[in-house]
Amino acid sequence: MTKLSPLQKERLKYQPKLPQSLENGVNSLEMIKGKATQSVGDQHEIKKLFPNTYGKPTVEFKTSSSSKKSEARNVGVILSGGQAPGGHNVIAGLYDALKHSNPDSKLYGFLGGPSGIIDGKYVEFDDEFIDAYRNTGGFDIIGSGRTKLETEEQFQKSLAVCKKLNISAVVIIGGDDSNTNAAMLAEWFVKHDAGIQVIGCPKTIDGDLKNDQIEISFGFDTATKTYAELIGNIQRDANSAKKYWHFIKIMGRSASHVALEAALQTQPNITLISEEVQAKKMSLSSIIDYIVNIIVKRADQGKNFGIAIIPEGLIEFIPEMGSMISNLNDIMATLESDPDFLNAETIRQKFEIVENRLDEKNAKVYSSLPALIKGQLLADRDPHGNVQVSKIETEKLIIEMVANKLDDMKLQGDFIGKFSPQSHFFGYEGRCAFPSNFDADYCYSLGYNAYALISNGLTGYLSSVKNLTAPASEWKAGGVPLTMMMNMEKRHGEMKPVIKKALVELDGPVFKQLADNREDWAMNDRYLFPGAIQYFGPSSVCDITTVTLQLEHQKQPAAV
Amino acid sequence: MTKLSPLQKERLKYQPKLPQSLENGVNSLEMIKGKATQSVGDQHEIKKLFPNTYGKPTVEFKTSSSSKKSEARNVGVILSGGQAPGGHNVIAGLYDALKHSNPDSKLYGFLGGPSGIIDGKYVEFDDEFIDAYRNTGGFDIIGSGRTKLETEEQFQKSLAVCKKLNISAVVIIGGDDSNTNAAMLAEWFVKHDAGIQVIGCPKTIDGDLKNDQIEISFGFDTATKTYAELIGNIQRDANSAKKYWHFIKIMGRSASHVALEAALQTQPNITLISEEVQAKKMSLSSIIDYIVNIIVKRADQGKNFGIAIIPEGLIEFIPEMGSMISNLNDIMATLESDPDFLNAETIRQKFEIVENRLDEKNAKVYSSLPALIKGQLLADRDPHGNVQVSKIETEKLIIEMVANKLDDMKLQGDFIGKFSPQSHFFGYEGRCAFPSNFDADYCYSLGYNAYALISNGLTGYLSSVKNLTAPASEWKAGGVPLTMMMNMEKRHGEMKPVIKKALVELDGPVFKQLADNREDWAMNDRYLFPGAIQYFGPSSVCDITTVTLQLEHQKQPAAV
Repeated sequence: MTKLSPLQKERLKYQPKLPQSLENGVNSLEMIKGKATQSVGDQHEIKKLFPNTYGKPTVEFKTSSSSKKSEARNVGVILSGGQAPGGHNVIAGLYDALKHSNPDSKLYGFLGGPSGIIDGKYVEFDDEFIDAYRNTGGFDIIGSGRTKLETEEQFQKSLAVCKKLNISAVVIIGGDDSNTNAAMLAEWFVKHDAGIQVIGCPKTIDGDLKNDQIEISFGFDTATKTYAELIGNIQRDANSAKKYWHFIKIMGRSASHVALEAALQTQPNITLISEEVQAKKMSLSSIIDYIVNIIVKRADQGKNFGIAIIPEGLIEFIPEMGSMISNLNDIMATLESDPDFLNAETIRQKFEIVENRLDEKNAKVYSSLPALIKGQLLADRDPHGNVQVSKIETEKLIIEMVANKLDDMKLQGDFIGKFSPQSHFFGYEGRCAFPSNFDADYCYSLGYNAYALISNGLTGYLSSVKNLTAPASEWKAGGVPLTMMMNMEKRHGEMKPVIKKALVELDGPVFKQLADNREDWAMNDRYLFPGAIQYFGPSSVCDITTVTLQLEHQKQPAAV
Repeated sequence: MTKLSPLQKERLKYQPKLPQSLENGVNSLEMIKGKATQSVGDQHEIKKLFPNTYGKPTVEFKTSSSSKKSEARNVGVILSGGQAPGGHNVIAGLYDALKHSNPDSKLYGFLGGPSGIIDGKYVEFDDEFIDAYRNTGGFDIIGSGRTKLETEEQFQKSLAVCKKLNISAVVIIGGDDSNTNAAMLAEWFVKHDAGIQVIGCPKTIDGDLKNDQIEISFGFDTATKTYAELIGNIQRDANSAKKYWHFIKIMGRSASHVALEAALQTQPNITLISEEVQAKKMSLSSIIDYIVNIIVKRADQGKNFGIAIIPEGLIEFIPEMGSMISNLNDIMATLESDPDFLNAETIRQKFEIVENRLDEKNAKVYSSLPALIKGQLLADRDPHGNVQVSKIETEKLIIEMVANKLDDMKLQGDFIGKFSPQSHFFGYEGRCAFPSNFDADYCYSLGYNAYALISNGLTGYLSSVKNLTAPASEWKAGGVPLTMMMNMEKRHGEMKPVIKKALVELDGPVFKQLADNREDWAMNDRYLFPGAIQYFGPSSVCDITTVTLQLEHQKQPAAV
């Protein structure tokens, strides 16, 4: 028998909550159609690209007094992209809805992400299989992958695999890119009269897949709570030892939602928000000045410790850095065929060659960086040959530049404190945590609801569960046309239809909560200690979702 | 009003459990004396150094049917050394016992560690003060510090401060060094007829303060559970994405108890144990070979991912590295007055100078290291001018050497997989977590019991609570003479009386659990996912202490 941790044993027994409308099962639903929809931008182009799936209405489900019989259906499910807590529950919810509707229905899981549907690699789920994964973290139930479903050949192969398995609906669990692919696949299937529906589910810990229709992507709640636990613990340590400045970089890709949410849960001394840096066109040195100013003022009060939160994507949002990286990407190919560069004896000689090749302004920025970062900018390249910004140790870049500045100030007598930095990067720690009760419930509902959309014959829709700061029974289940969330954006030089990513809104209530308080948090220690995610116990501790969502719903969060 | 996180609000209400013998308060206790004791080693020297406190009996408390009246006492308490979850509860337990015995008694907290008693910096606790810290992590209630209490002048000053405050007992909460200091202070107070008792409490997340008399030091349970949570989450991520090898260094000083406990809770592919490396006289290259062998065999099975746990102190336990570091410490002073070294233009020139100065064998070891590590060995020095081993990024050293070896094997066709490493270091994340129910109860009991020892007139004792794998009501409270745990060891060239540190016993049941299973864990993925510490809910999840302690008590742990 497989050994399980005590928590896992208990979590397997947890029965996720459903919106009341779904509680009687998919066969007892009435579907209420809203008005026809438009894409958020570039309506003309999007409509042209999605002639068969564009403009459909949003829908909402209500419990129906009558119950219809449901035919047996075969459905396939795909996990796409990076892990997010709750993915297993989406599949469990989908499975339960499908089996409850008709026990002869079958659910297939495609293995290793979208490549599974292309290559025909799959498993069929049964009760025992699903039961082992209920309320667990990770995507290990069928694995995930980053293959993009977008070429004619891939669509053809997917069709063949679905036909072979008699699959008439596919659920794609993924982020903005994966759901864009879901929209394309849905359109293609309709165009080719394949009789296969496609439904998306909104996944990403990054929190950037949200809009008027999607309140939150799943996994954001659990991941941010895990990071907040760690930040809180480190704050308590800093406030006890009183000798370290901790610089904590937090995963979350381009947008700063994760860093912002973690900061609102913990109230650290410094929080950088990439979107603000970009909007204010802050230079790297002005960011360093902002940090140094707080360190010096705290040192004047005898406090040689503190916490600074840095969003993963920061570096690209600093205009001068973005420009330099873009210039670096342009010259990289020629550099790599330059014998002087290739045969350079020391890394410093390489730096010099790079500086000579970059435009003057960009060369100055590159030259100002610590050697560690100069090296990292040359080291890892993505498959397109571009600098891998996520590999840059921004937290160490900032530490080194802050330390240098403080050293200078010390010589001038302007800094009389001590600066002992520690760096941290949190990402993998939160992507596969056991889903919080919120994510467990939300994901189960998303999966259950996905089958309601299938059962009602829809395609090209995203599973939507809303009103999420209310108790689960009051949640509203329905669907949103994927095309409704799309616009045209440049990708690798070409205009493409994509689901619009949400960045932190600088005029929104969430950022405002930070902006209104950060001066106080910088100097006075208002640290909050969220502690570990709790699955049992008082509802105030176990069932509350993110500060971000509460503020967006204009509620006063419990801890803020 | 101070804002608190939802969990903190709930945890403030938690009433820690006490051993039954203490439940009726300190006034209703009978003290049972055991036999006279001996120190664990060097009896003659220890007895000579502690003529007044040596050889005392162990004691145990039983509930007495009669209740005596307790005079009002003033007591001082000190937090010493690194943070460990539960320190606040030791103070809360001590406070409650003291106030319950006689409401006129007073508890003073010395600020910032042992320097507080020397410099007379203190606070007086009252209900409101204590209530705000119940069941919270951190040492921020009064701060901690690393000043050693060992000189005549320090003892004199401490005496003066205690006299001023009419303090007749001091409780020192600390690790092996701090309790050694407690023993010295106790002896000094008796010798000078000061009428001040000294009681120690066993604190350290490192788990190396344990012996026949102390089953576990407080904080070890919570810290290892926090690290295990993170390792488990990363394992689930690795097993989902199937593309990264995670190398995770874990805090814990010299001994590998923390790494071993975290490994038993999570069952990773690779766990290094410093004590084994030393016992088997393993070279760095043989450690690399061990890791590479597992990576290659897993890659042959198509598994290009895995988890390796590295104890913080590893590097010193590799005989050749220990020798090289010791040689480096010896030459460092002369290096720093060598103009060639000081004026070297590049760090590589410095490396060469170091290699020329080191003994041949040590030079070879130094030369074999990656540049990053060579640099770190020269960079940070402790106050004695020695290499700061804790600052060496062992996890990155291992990654680089493993990667180099795999590159060579790839060229030979002996490795056909991919190696994408990620490094992590966990330490500060666990030292200030909210104490687990176990640590909350254990610490409260240790503090409560400390006052029982005081009330019974003892000095030079460690507060002892045993039988810890049983329910708290069955725990056994008592005291152990501090001298009983001491022997003589060389410190900075001099023989000193110290409390003997516990290293991992290679013939003990805890290491055996790893040794018996690691081959299986290496190849087959037996990952356990402990999840976040739970404070509410099923007892199987919330009230179980470490695998280490269960195995030491010859119990079959729940999850192993």
